Amino acid sequence: MLDEYNCWMQQIRQNLPANLVLDTVFAEKGGEIAVTAVNEFCLGIQRLLGFSPVIVTATNENPGVILRIAGNNAPNSFTIKTSENSLIITGRDEPGLLYGVFRFLFLLAQGEVHKAQGRLDITEEPASPLRMINHWDNLDGTVERGYAGPSLFFRDNRFHYDKDRITDYARLLASLGINRISINNVNVRGSAKLLITEDYLGEVAALAAIFRPFGIRLLLSINFSAPWSLGKLPTADPLDSAVAAWWKDCSDLVYRYIPDLAGFLVKADSEGEPGPFQYGRSHADGANMLAKALKPHGGDVIWRCFVYNCTQDWRDHSLDRARAAYDHFMPLDGTFDDNVILQIKHGPYDFQVREPVTPLFGAFQKTRHIMELQITQEYTGHQIDLCYLPWFWQDIMEFDTGHASGLAGGRIKDLVGPYKEGCSYIEGFAAVVNVGCDHNWTGHCLAQANLYGYGRLAWNPGLSAQAIAHEWSRLSFGSDPSAQPLADSVAGLLLQSYPAFEKYNAPFGVCFMVTPHTHYGPNIEGYEFSRWGTYHRADAHAIGIDRTPTGTGYTSQYSAPNAAVFADPARCPENLLLFFHRLRYDFIMKNGETLLQNIYNTHFEGYDETAAMLETWKGFRTSLPVEVYQSALSLFERQLENAREWRDQINTYFYRKTGIPDKKGRKIFD
Amino acid sequence: MLDEYNCWMQQIRQNLPANLVLDTVFAEKGGEIAVTAVNEFCLGIQRLLGFSPVIVTATNENPGVILRIAGNNAPNSFTIKTSENSLIITGRDEPGLLYGVFRFLFLLAQGEVHKAQGRLDITEEPASPLRMINHWDNLDGTVERGYAGPSLFFRDNRFHYDKDRITDYARLLASLGINRISINNVNVRGSAKLLITEDYLGEVAALAAIFRPFGIRLLLSINFSAPWSLGKLPTADPLDSAVAAWWKDCSDLVYRYIPDLAGFLVKADSEGEPGPFQYGRSHADGANMLAKALKPHGGDVIWRCFVYNCTQDWRDHSLDRARAAYDHFMPLDGTFDDNVILQIKHGPYDFQVREPVTPLFGAFQKTRHIMELQITQEYTGHQIDLCYLPWFWQDIMEFDTGHASGLAGGRIKDLVGPYKEGCSYIEGFAAVVNVGCDHNWTGHCLAQANLYGYGRLAWNPGLSAQAIAHEWSRLSFGSDPSAQPLADSVAGLLLQSYPAFEKYNAPFGVCFMVTPHTHYGPNIEGYEFSRWGTYHRADAHAIGIDRTPTGTGYTSQYSAPNAAVFADPARCPENLLLFFHRLRYDFIMKNGETLLQNIYNTHFEGYDETAAMLETWKGFRTSLPVEVYQSALSLFERQLENAREWRDQINTYFYRKTGIPDKKGRKIFD
Repeated sequence: MLDEYNCWMQQIRQNLPANLVLDTVFAEKGGEIAVTAVNEFCLGIQRLLGFSPVIVTATNENPGVILRIAGNNAPNSFTIKTSENSLIITGRDEPGLLYGVFRFLFLLAQGEVHKAQGRLDITEEPASPLRMINHWDNLDGTVERGYAGPSLFFRDNRFHYDKDRITDYARLLASLGINRISINNVNVRGSAKLLITEDYLGEVAALAAIFRPFGIRLLLSINFSAPWSLGKLPTADPLDSAVAAWWKDCSDLVYRYIPDLAGFLVKADSEGEPGPFQYGRSHADGANMLAKALKPHGGDVIWRCFVYNCTQDWRDHSLDRARAAYDHFMPLDGTFDDNVILQIKHGPYDFQVREPVTPLFGAFQKTRHIMELQITQEYTGHQIDLCYLPWFWQDIMEFDTGHASGLAGGRIKDLVGPYKEGCSYIEGFAAVVNVGCDHNWTGHCLAQANLYGYGRLAWNPGLSAQAIAHEWSRLSFGSDPSAQPLADSVAGLLLQSYPAFEKYNAPFGVCFMVTPHTHYGPNIEGYEFSRWGTYHRADAHAIGIDRTPTGTGYTSQYSAPNAAVFADPARCPENLLLFFHRLRYDFIMKNGETLLQNIYNTHFEGYDETAAMLETWKGFRTSLPVEVYQSALSLFERQLENAREWRDQINTYFYRKTGIPDKKGRKIFD
Repeated sequence: MLDEYNCWMQQIRQNLPANLVLDTVFAEKGGEIAVTAVNEFCLGIQRLLGFSPVIVTATNENPGVILRIAGNNAPNSFTIKTSENSLIITGRDEPGLLYGVFRFLFLLAQGEVHKAQGRLDITEEPASPLRMINHWDNLDGTVERGYAGPSLFFRDNRFHYDKDRITDYARLLASLGINRISINNVNVRGSAKLLITEDYLGEVAALAAIFRPFGIRLLLSINFSAPWSLGKLPTADPLDSAVAAWWKDCSDLVYRYIPDLAGFLVKADSEGEPGPFQYGRSHADGANMLAKALKPHGGDVIWRCFVYNCTQDWRDHSLDRARAAYDHFMPLDGTFDDNVILQIKHGPYDFQVREPVTPLFGAFQKTRHIMELQITQEYTGHQIDLCYLPWFWQDIMEFDTGHASGLAGGRIKDLVGPYKEGCSYIEGFAAVVNVGCDHNWTGHCLAQANLYGYGRLAWNPGLSAQAIAHEWSRLSFGSDPSAQPLADSVAGLLLQSYPAFEKYNAPFGVCFMVTPHTHYGPNIEGYEFSRWGTYHRADAHAIGIDRTPTGTGYTSQYSAPNAAVFADPARCPENLLLFFHRLRYDFIMKNGETLLQNIYNTHFEGYDETAAMLETWKGFRTSLPVEVYQSALSLFERQLENAREWRDQINTYFYRKTGIPDKKGRKIFD
């Protein structure tokens, strides 16, 4: 990683096999995305090979490279083929061509073109049409759950950005196949409400114009009560005709400025945000009303399913927040308009280090929907701690929902595809991004791998976390023989990081032992008496919530085979044991040791593994630019301190509860 | 309470005994405080009797009232005497005259003059010379730990106030005998550092001019590192001659603007504030350097003793924050200049609901010092919960330090008096005030009783909490027969409130089970793994810190008799049991029940008593102006919700730890 700013597009020189001569390019005529594809091809060749290809205007000039748009396979797909001395990249459509160019450049940068001796025959298509990035940027320049500096887009309640940097950002996203971006926080407060008014629409359009040539369409997060707060109507009731008319006028206005806006993103009736419940209406009523306003313009309503009772009384054992998304939305299956897309968090809680896949996936048959992930490390270390998220995302993609529904299989990765009624397809992904104005975009330079990994999995959810780690590492640290050991070591660090983080965190899927509000560091009873519905109820003998049919019944929201597995402590995956069960500390786990001893073990191990990661990093001192080395070094040191707090607080907490020391005699503070 | 704004100076009509004719006043010539005394006499008579006395200029006009300055008793003392038809109020000095006038008016307002049939012969002197109010007001208008609206003095980094309101405030304070006020937060940050510069000194002087006629002198809180941060010196080392010279110049400048400034208030080396420790110097070095700068102007350095390690590691059982003040300052006894006055918090922690009196009192023999109390309800309910603080302060005043040192006795109230070397006199009091821009000054109208009670105790620490409650209640709600039942009931509420609050709070002096940062509501393990040094270390069997000689040895900082009592669980006062001891939950208390059962009992009782207080208040509905009734009603309702959280979280916490239910079968949530 020569310059952290360049991420996975480093200026690293490569060798070209003799048969390829890339110094002339012929490109078929196309729109602005096709123009971008040609530009990016030339920029990439300059970056990797040190020369700029000449663009020729006729095929009879026998160009080394042909970029074209053709074929009738899936949207956004591409082929990369070599024949004799020429390279032909064919996009099914303009974005497809752009993605083909970037894939070729990635292959080149990784030395794969050389290794293949210049013979390529590659066809790729994205698993799904929607590959979204969500910004939680506020107009004052802060970023909710942002750990990489201020907003890329906003400052002091106006748009404020470096156009070159946004172009670089668009390039990074497009190189992964991202095609949608929501630019403002889903909690739409203050002047963010005005983004859909003429006060701001000119500026929104200007930003859209930077992303558009990269095949990326904007979304705006809106506030459901806008007709009341902005429009001065007496209500925002979705069944009120004046409200519907207000949103229609609003949409007409918005689309005059941004004709290709992808739509609106809505957080409604969630953590204090307004929504249809306030007016006794359903979420279908709310979403469909907006959908009708957007429909004439080809826009979608992306409607979040993060709806739960956030003023729970901890005394009430009958409520189970984990049930909320399914309980609220499953009965609505089939009632949404065809331009409503539900955005469902991957798990039933909220981006915890380990939680099960939400039971809505595979269950929905007649409702368009996508999965929401979180790239920004809200609960996973604030981009201080290294935590390579594709490790967990791979588990999500491989999870078998048990709902095959006539498809090839019921795994999440099998379900990802374009919507078709009657099939439980997941139409794509959205993810809360981890970037900001920090020079290296993501605070911790290695956290770039999480953005990269998200893009790759959104394109192809069948990729392995290991393959992605190595891919990213080679692109960022180099692929020539001299760089390979470093790149391999860094990939190794990534792959160690999630297991280590998970080990020193809340044990076995019990969740929410994190510091309230900040969500960094341990606070074991921090949520225990709060209104957020996330309790572990540890007492002297046992811990966890019984979510089986003898408890809250949450397991029954899953398909029959999963319901049976999750409800049985002997078969439940151990990393989710305390999500589904209330267990005594003397429960015997698969390794023959008690739950308590396993808590001790994992916490000692998590710290030790983190210490080892720090030592590994120290070994890179002479291999990296000093600023890259030092900045991550100080983060690894802070991470070790955090791991120590988690280890000691968790161990002490359970030791105080039980009085039982560690079997191996390791130090537990009293 | 007809108008909450008037506090204890309501416009309530009284009867005058026939022998007194107060319609003419002769006042000896005097300075501006004496002029205030005359004005206040006339205003008070107007308020209480409905006419304005005429001021005559010669005694031969046979005036009904004579106000004069004479005598050689203690400073600020006064006599009130009637002879035949005339009333003579004699102040030892101008403030004494003013205090005499206010005392007469208070007696009149309470019906005491009438009851005494106009025959009065009263002599009073304040127990001590320093009766201070500390504002924690920030220049941006916020008030640290303020619960009664924005600052009275500041807004947007400038002075900003209503001069009439400040005059009313000065009157309220002077009516209690307050004679010092520090106007800015002891955490001196941002523009507050500039109060000692010409940027602000003109405005400081203007404010001082409002307080001066009421006998109240200003203090400024200063930042110890000012020579570095303001003066651009390379250091703020107190032994550096350039630093000393900088402070001398600074003092010279400040006193050109405010010649009677009482001095500087300093929080040094405390919770992140700069101080002499940074330069390897002692607190005597720091304080004496400043004292020398102030000495030529007659100013004092008020130096806070709130110095402790606020970055403690919870794993470290050897450190005990309770020891800090004594460990830091006792060795310095006798090393401070004669215009340094140490300001010592009443307890070793930080204004907890119940903590012991700090062992420095009675121990210091050669160091001027005062006691710091907190009127603002930081840990005692934020002026949402009713919590009548004189109840606790009385216990402090009655505490026998065991250090008699040749005085009448060793109780705190015996130690209060003017400084004399070799005696352990407490030279007065400072208290963090509870007022802000709310119409009723204190948020909860009944919290006015805490300000009143502080002033009365600072004047006379021998007063009982009960007497003060009734005095305040009569002055605020009326003393005529029709008002008496209401006034008595309100006094009853005050006197119930502290025991109720204490019962539902952290049990038996264990302290700090409060929500971190805000300090409102329970968070039982909120400080357990923090850096603040305030741990209870509850495990399955026991709770508390052993502070006896077998533990941290804190008890040994007390006089021998107290050390013995505190170190013995059988003799230790039960309300401090868990401050001094680590005890098993099955420890048997004086009532024959276990510690655990007593925790349950007090928490059920605390809630029930709060519920009863709410019912009592509801009974006042028809007796009070609707805004007075409603505003306190909503606060009592919030208090009951708070009491419920405390009761249930505390009980559940210990039930989960022990598995032992309540003996009486009351509901404890699991």
